[in-house]
Amino acid sequence: MDSLAVSADDVGKAAERIAGDVVRTPSAESRTLSALTGLDVVVKFENLQFTASFKDRGAANKLHQLTAAERGAGVLAVSAGNHAQSVAYHATRLGIAATIVMPASAPFTKVANTEALGAEVVQAGATFADAAAVAERLVRERGLTMVHPYDDPAVIAGQGTVAVELLDDVDGIDTLLVPVGGGGLLAGIAAYARAVRPDIELVGVQSEVYPGMIAALAGQELAPSRAETLADGIAVKTPGRLTVPLVRDLADEVLAVPEAAIERAVSLYLEIEKTVVEGAGAVGLAAVLEDPERWRGKRVGLILSGGNIDTRVLASVLMRELVHSGRITTVRISLPDLPGALAPVLSTVAAAGANVIEIDHRRLFDPISARATNVDVVIETRDRLHTATVLASLQQAGYQADILG
Amino acid sequence: MDSLAVSADDVGKAAERIAGDVVRTPSAESRTLSALTGLDVVVKFENLQFTASFKDRGAANKLHQLTAAERGAGVLAVSAGNHAQSVAYHATRLGIAATIVMPASAPFTKVANTEALGAEVVQAGATFADAAAVAERLVRERGLTMVHPYDDPAVIAGQGTVAVELLDDVDGIDTLLVPVGGGGLLAGIAAYARAVRPDIELVGVQSEVYPGMIAALAGQELAPSRAETLADGIAVKTPGRLTVPLVRDLADEVLAVPEAAIERAVSLYLEIEKTVVEGAGAVGLAAVLEDPERWRGKRVGLILSGGNIDTRVLASVLMRELVHSGRITTVRISLPDLPGALAPVLSTVAAAGANVIEIDHRRLFDPISARATNVDVVIETRDRLHTATVLASLQQAGYQADILG
Repeated sequence: MDSLAVSADDVGKAAERIAGDVVRTPSAESRTLSALTGLDVVVKFENLQFTASFKDRGAANKLHQLTAAERGAGVLAVSAGNHAQSVAYHATRLGIAATIVMPASAPFTKVANTEALGAEVVQAGATFADAAAVAERLVRERGLTMVHPYDDPAVIAGQGTVAVELLDDVDGIDTLLVPVGGGGLLAGIAAYARAVRPDIELVGVQSEVYPGMIAALAGQELAPSRAETLADGIAVKTPGRLTVPLVRDLADEVLAVPEAAIERAVSLYLEIEKTVVEGAGAVGLAAVLEDPERWRGKRVGLILSGGNIDTRVLASVLMRELVHSGRITTVRISLPDLPGALAPVLSTVAAAGANVIEIDHRRLFDPISARATNVDVVIETRDRLHTATVLASLQQAGYQADILG
Repeated sequence: MDSLAVSADDVGKAAERIAGDVVRTPSAESRTLSALTGLDVVVKFENLQFTASFKDRGAANKLHQLTAAERGAGVLAVSAGNHAQSVAYHATRLGIAATIVMPASAPFTKVANTEALGAEVVQAGATFADAAAVAERLVRERGLTMVHPYDDPAVIAGQGTVAVELLDDVDGIDTLLVPVGGGGLLAGIAAYARAVRPDIELVGVQSEVYPGMIAALAGQELAPSRAETLADGIAVKTPGRLTVPLVRDLADEVLAVPEAAIERAVSLYLEIEKTVVEGAGAVGLAAVLEDPERWRGKRVGLILSGGNIDTRVLASVLMRELVHSGRITTVRISLPDLPGALAPVLSTVAAAGANVIEIDHRRLFDPISARATNVDVVIETRDRLHTATVLASLQQAGYQADILG
């Protein structure tokens, strides 16, 4: 164990070092999520950090330990995500110049947010690998100190302070479910929690689309992928040299959850807890939604690691969840292309208690004949059962009506 | 003053009475909202109550004061909103049967949520007036006790406990901005805050679409309206007989904010504070967004009164805010209806750094000639300035391109 990069003592010291610099985020039991899953669910709200993710902790702990010369020269990070904002924010606070390298394709809001926090953003390269090459050149040329997002003992120890607060604030936790990308958060939490609570269960959670840590623990590497995940904050192909041994030695398991469960978890946090969570921050809840039986009767701590989700993506997740849960449905109805054909359809839908949201005529490709047209009616209902009764009403009224998708 | 329905002492006693029954919600300074508005902004997060609004307070205070006989007979409320859920929740907790009357048109989720909290929901009548008539009959026939959403001293005193906590938790508040519908929240807050902090500024905020309290203070009544507001929780035509005198005597002013400001406030709470707020809960922030100069240098407390917003409405607000802020724009481009006409348009858009979200051909009504077509391209950009450069690029490339809407 003494060969590991970070110890419980390192994490404890990090907690003291950054106490005044980061938010001591609330930990709260969720009665409704507990009732929904049959567990005793506790949530650690790291989306309430100043830059809305736990990455503030690692950045603050790293920056505090720089020498005066290193501070004077400035720091650099390669990130288009939460790490970028955390390094920018804490460097600016400490009077350290920060350069953040992002690929040219980085989302507009990420660039703007990072610049607003006082960093110089360099957009370079088509991929992260290209951006990293530019970053290495800048480090050499300008004498900057690289702040790695996860493969640095000071960063890992900083992230682990989440566990210091949570285990201090909440008694009797049986299991911690921790998002895993590069592995910094789980490695830091494991270094601390395993030492102070040897019997605690420590489970990492990844997206099924990016199981980089699971592959690394099996001695493999993920094939290059163009797959997209809602949990972009943990879409890491290759976890850290330092984090993998910590996770292997101290965590119990790393498991993967499907995208649909992550979407549902984001929606539930929003609807039930009234809180905004990014995909990566929702994987712990996704894991208990997928397999609540596994933790029946246990007190489970979910690390809600961050809340930085693109507004357009969030709106899309909310609408998709309404579709998945059967509350919004597109019904395709064949109609004669004649005056007065649509009104009785809408009357039938209304009589069945459904709300019409959109109507779209599909004339070009779908008609059965030149005198017929397909009409796609998007309806809002109470639930899937209600949708079925609306469809039955239409069919009883003599319409050919089918659910699309 | 002694003719007023509720005193500071009543509110103080309510706070003691309901202390174990409601959440002592957090009050937090928002650095980012403060920077954005140039004020010192403090937010009271009543969306973190169990049923996600302050209405839990009034309901709990009222139900605790019922006689044993009244408890045995049960209670009734007319509401399709937060009051319904609060009465249902606290009645069930206290072992009191609750009947909630809603108009037949009440949203599905409101019915389901209220039933899930243990109440019997009766859907009756096309309007609230019709539902109220049904409710009065049920009260007579079944001997139920009516729990009014705002025109009841016990309810008003309960709502006022928001101020007890906020003024206890945060020093030096100059101004409180309080959502106003029926007026129970402002009346209760004013009864307490005016007594313990005589110099505090107390401002009620309504939607411009439903300025019922403003009309009542002027001795008028709103004309019947079919207007819709995002702040449906405070869309009250006629405020209370008890609340109007309290507001008139103790509050400084009631002002109205436009719908666009309410939408922007909901978006900002979500993006900056990572918290979900309903329209009614966002009017305080909307007021400071509308006129930040008025409170320059002041410490302003915003009562974020609730977080129950329909998922579909929230998704729509988020998308509309992207459009309003110039980050999503529909550009209409006239093209010859020929193979290969669209590809160079998209290349031009891509070269200008914009992201294409949707493409829609408008052939039926808009074409300039039978050989031309209009194409509506929905693009995502950094901001309004970036959108202008994209449009200029298209025009320089020889296209007729206009921003729609």
